[in-house]
Amino acid sequence: MVDLALVHYPVVNRQGETIGSAVTNLDLHDIARAGRTYGIGTYWVITPFAEQQRLVREIVGHWTEGYGAAANPDRKEALSIIAVRADLAAAIAGATEKFGERPLVLATCAKASSQSFAFARAREWIQRPRPLLLLFGTAWGLSPEVLAMADGVLPPVQGDMDFNHLSVRSAASIVMDRLLGAREACQPDA
Amino acid sequence: MVDLALVHYPVVNRQGETIGSAVTNLDLHDIARAGRTYGIGTYWVITPFAEQQRLVREIVGHWTEGYGAAANPDRKEALSIIAVRADLAAAIAGATEKFGERPLVLATCAKASSQSFAFARAREWIQRPRPLLLLFGTAWGLSPEVLAMADGVLPPVQGDMDFNHLSVRSAASIVMDRLLGAREACQPDA
Repeated sequence: MVDLALVHYPVVNRQGETIGSAVTNLDLHDIARAGRTYGIGTYWVITPFAEQQRLVREIVGHWTEGYGAAANPDRKEALSIIAVRADLAAAIAGATEKFGERPLVLATCAKASSQSFAFARAREWIQRPRPLLLLFGTAWGLSPEVLAMADGVLPPVQGDMDFNHLSVRSAASIVMDRLLGAREACQPDA
Repeated sequence: MVDLALVHYPVVNRQGETIGSAVTNLDLHDIARAGRTYGIGTYWVITPFAEQQRLVREIVGHWTEGYGAAANPDRKEALSIIAVRADLAAAIAGATEKFGERPLVLATCAKASSQSFAFARAREWIQRPRPLLLLFGTAWGLSPEVLAMADGVLPPVQGDMDFNHLSVRSAASIVMDRLLGAREACQPDA
């Protein structure tokens, strides 16, 4: 009962200005492969640009129906969880219809937030089980209005360093593992 | 005291044959960014091909000394942990010299191994602190001889699904988080 959305608009650039980013092939592949590994239901790819929506559908089509599907069935299985929507509201509506109730919407951010929602709390929510939609931003991250409309924001993913510049592919993989990974891997007494 | 090596030879292809794979730009960036975030000392990039070694040095040079360094200092900081070596033995020798003792060499594999070395045990090793070198394979993974020469093999990174086809970028990010991530993020009572 967990979905994930990768947002290309509205996100911010390095200066904090709201922009729309370009879809990249590897964001589709890496996050779909991790999503399928961790049991994500739908991987929503959010872009308002018709050209970019078409690009996503072409890439997904190649791997789910075209040559790639026969050449690499694992990739077909991974990419088949992708669905394109023009905006986040449409993805939330789609997830709500699928789950039969509105999912809890948790955003992610490289900076600490006052809307902080602990990983352990999100894990408990998932285990109840209740539906959850995880939001990830491309470029320099989700815009302030997306963070504000979310039900909560997960803590930044960090090591012990002051450096914290993960790719969205790495961040999404780590968050899925923290929320959905086999539990014993995390426990000191395992 | 933790290093990481990304191996391009010897690795296996889908048929299990030993091959040498091509370096990809995003493996350098994503794993360096995650490595810097989690405090990896050196990110060893292993390829015996002179052309490929040159390519790695060009990419790293662009971001650490060239235009990219001024345009994006965070990327400079991340990519500066990369060092290229022709084979794994040279990387182990380099790490041994740096640490003043031979690091424990732990391989990673998408399949369960009889040389299994639990994540919790690896975490304890790091905390003692003792030096550790993590090995990741490109293509379809590290060759059997690399797995055999390692001191141990970490369990496969998995969710609850039978599907387990993470990109090496995702797998490396997740393993670093499991071994070096801020501990409370993992604990149910956090």
